[in-house]
Amino acid sequence: MTVIDIPADSPFGIDNLPYGVFSTAGSAPRVGVRVADKVVDLSVVLGDEVFARPSLNDFMALGPQAWASARARIAASVRGEVPAHAVADLADVAMHLPIEVADYVDFYASEQHATNLGRLFRPDSAPLMPNWKHLPVGYHGRAGTVIVSGTDIVRPCGQRKSPAAPAPSFGPSQRVDIEAELGFIVGVPSEPGAVITPDEFAEHIFGAVVVNDWSARDIQAWEYVPLGPFLGKSFATSISPWVVPLAALEAARIDTPVQDPEPLPYLRGDQKWGLDVDLTVEWNGQLVSRPPYAQMYWSPAQMLAHTTINGAAARTGDLFASGTISGDRKDQRGAFIELTWGGAEPVEVNGEPRTFLEDGDEIAIAATAPGPGGSRIGFGEVRARILPATQAGR
Amino acid sequence: MTVIDIPADSPFGIDNLPYGVFSTAGSAPRVGVRVADKVVDLSVVLGDEVFARPSLNDFMALGPQAWASARARIAASVRGEVPAHAVADLADVAMHLPIEVADYVDFYASEQHATNLGRLFRPDSAPLMPNWKHLPVGYHGRAGTVIVSGTDIVRPCGQRKSPAAPAPSFGPSQRVDIEAELGFIVGVPSEPGAVITPDEFAEHIFGAVVVNDWSARDIQAWEYVPLGPFLGKSFATSISPWVVPLAALEAARIDTPVQDPEPLPYLRGDQKWGLDVDLTVEWNGQLVSRPPYAQMYWSPAQMLAHTTINGAAARTGDLFASGTISGDRKDQRGAFIELTWGGAEPVEVNGEPRTFLEDGDEIAIAATAPGPGGSRIGFGEVRARILPATQAGR
Repeated sequence: MTVIDIPADSPFGIDNLPYGVFSTAGSAPRVGVRVADKVVDLSVVLGDEVFARPSLNDFMALGPQAWASARARIAASVRGEVPAHAVADLADVAMHLPIEVADYVDFYASEQHATNLGRLFRPDSAPLMPNWKHLPVGYHGRAGTVIVSGTDIVRPCGQRKSPAAPAPSFGPSQRVDIEAELGFIVGVPSEPGAVITPDEFAEHIFGAVVVNDWSARDIQAWEYVPLGPFLGKSFATSISPWVVPLAALEAARIDTPVQDPEPLPYLRGDQKWGLDVDLTVEWNGQLVSRPPYAQMYWSPAQMLAHTTINGAAARTGDLFASGTISGDRKDQRGAFIELTWGGAEPVEVNGEPRTFLEDGDEIAIAATAPGPGGSRIGFGEVRARILPATQAGR
Repeated sequence: MTVIDIPADSPFGIDNLPYGVFSTAGSAPRVGVRVADKVVDLSVVLGDEVFARPSLNDFMALGPQAWASARARIAASVRGEVPAHAVADLADVAMHLPIEVADYVDFYASEQHATNLGRLFRPDSAPLMPNWKHLPVGYHGRAGTVIVSGTDIVRPCGQRKSPAAPAPSFGPSQRVDIEAELGFIVGVPSEPGAVITPDEFAEHIFGAVVVNDWSARDIQAWEYVPLGPFLGKSFATSISPWVVPLAALEAARIDTPVQDPEPLPYLRGDQKWGLDVDLTVEWNGQLVSRPPYAQMYWSPAQMLAHTTINGAAARTGDLFASGTISGDRKDQRGAFIELTWGGAEPVEVNGEPRTFLEDGDEIAIAATAPGPGGSRIGFGEVRARILPATQAGR
């Protein structure tokens, strides 16, 4: 047996206990919980077969009572002695995609981001569309290309057309960008036709991750009218390996900014589901932005209610992301197209002026939130490196 | 043992042999093949466990050689004597969703449809966007709400805003519409980063179904800028229960219409993947349209190549649909918004002038294609009824 040393200021203390899927050399992926810099094998410690599986989906489907019970038992276990073979150093494990993604939806819930993108993509129109303050705008993305942090990103190829060119050309995207987001994961499904109200959010949502929704801006700009983004986004969406349980975010719950006009009744609730989560964006190790989730206009509870208001069922493993998180200040913008104003205002990264991503660049997006009693809740990070394009010869 | 009577003119003869998932009273869903008006249980006749499962996915993943071998063995079996307990009347079985849908993509590949919709949605602009003839425009839809023919459709509720209203209102969609499409199903996955060329289409695609991509035009019109359709489409997408193998469509292969300008090299191939498939749309039993797939501008092989050109992997169970099939003539339009020109030109259905769908309406979309030696290949139909909205009180 062993005792896990949990420093008092660890963002992965007893108040957090995020879930992930890990493997050690020669072993099958299974569910673990992160405690300080250790991974605790729940298939051993809780002795439940649901944790011996290669995704969280079966556990997530069990619902809030089972989640609360497991959380209490895990907290009790990791405070005491744990079988030594159930504990591994983080550095010694491989992390896997923690969930089987059912449907992936990406929202557009930051007023600052939507305003900035509107100015950049449609300079001759009002930056916010007339619908933007009435509903959380969203669209479906590609579930099959959601990948875990640490997976390299191959620069995508595709069609892009400069305004002056008579026709599009093919080649590697010249404007590969990031989008710093939070993602929310459905545990308990809904029946077809049943609406999840904003106040039923915690009955369905298992937890949250950090998301980097990679974007090829040149491909996107050419393809996206009239049916929205497709190949400009579908090459990769990276998520952090540790799913922070909703229960660990209680102290982070805040009101959203004032919503004016007041949304339609189906988007209203009594519970606060704004979240005081602070993100950081590091570009080759240098901090370039601090996006504040607290400023997001639409709450994730409103996003989920909106998704189901037409009767569409939610499934275990559905992932929906907030859209780029951008705050009021320039150094709070969560995408480089905004941070560099379409490439016109480079930022300095390790002494070099930079706009979009170059081959070999590495991006790490991390997040923390307030926990109980002044503690911090860590999400960990979503990190990936850009590799050169491989389809360039076509 | 029994012998199946196969009329010489049956569209479900030996040249077709479509696969589906069926159950009889008290039995588990399993894979069958349709022969005339019978369903033959492949878990019995071929004695392979892959056919005892509740979806085609595991069989589809085996690839073209396994598909060809199974097809030859099925043809030999159903020509001879078959165990009586392996044969059921179509009328006595329940049909299930034949595949586990991985990602669902909807294209927009009919020039006539895109032109008509452009005129209706954006009357002040050129109807075709500048990108339309350079790439098959597409977007991701909701995989979790793909349902099998026969499942009722509850009228969706949501936000809609008339141009004159100062703000949106909530309620049942007043413009529920159909979209008559063909859908193509990926059997053999591709690796991340690997592009499927147009000439590799048959190495990956298992077969085709008829699709009705239900659309709430009022919800769609209000929500779709700038990120594309979401709730206006995500409430339901119906597919026919029988997956016609690609091998049964050999005699239907034709050239697409001339593509001018010539597409970029990654969208070119030597093989013909236009398809001479004729659809019919029945509204409460009355034939109202005959959409011709033969007129579609982009081939499904081009759609698949485009989907993977950015390195996105295709997975077993990916479904992509053509988009509404509309021909040159008014009575060849595959959506009611076109057929009735936005509701301004009602069509007569059983003596009544009609525009969009009313509660109780039933739609059946069917398709056939030429088979070898003058035979016909039947897709069967995708049929569903509209039920009243249930969220109206919100």
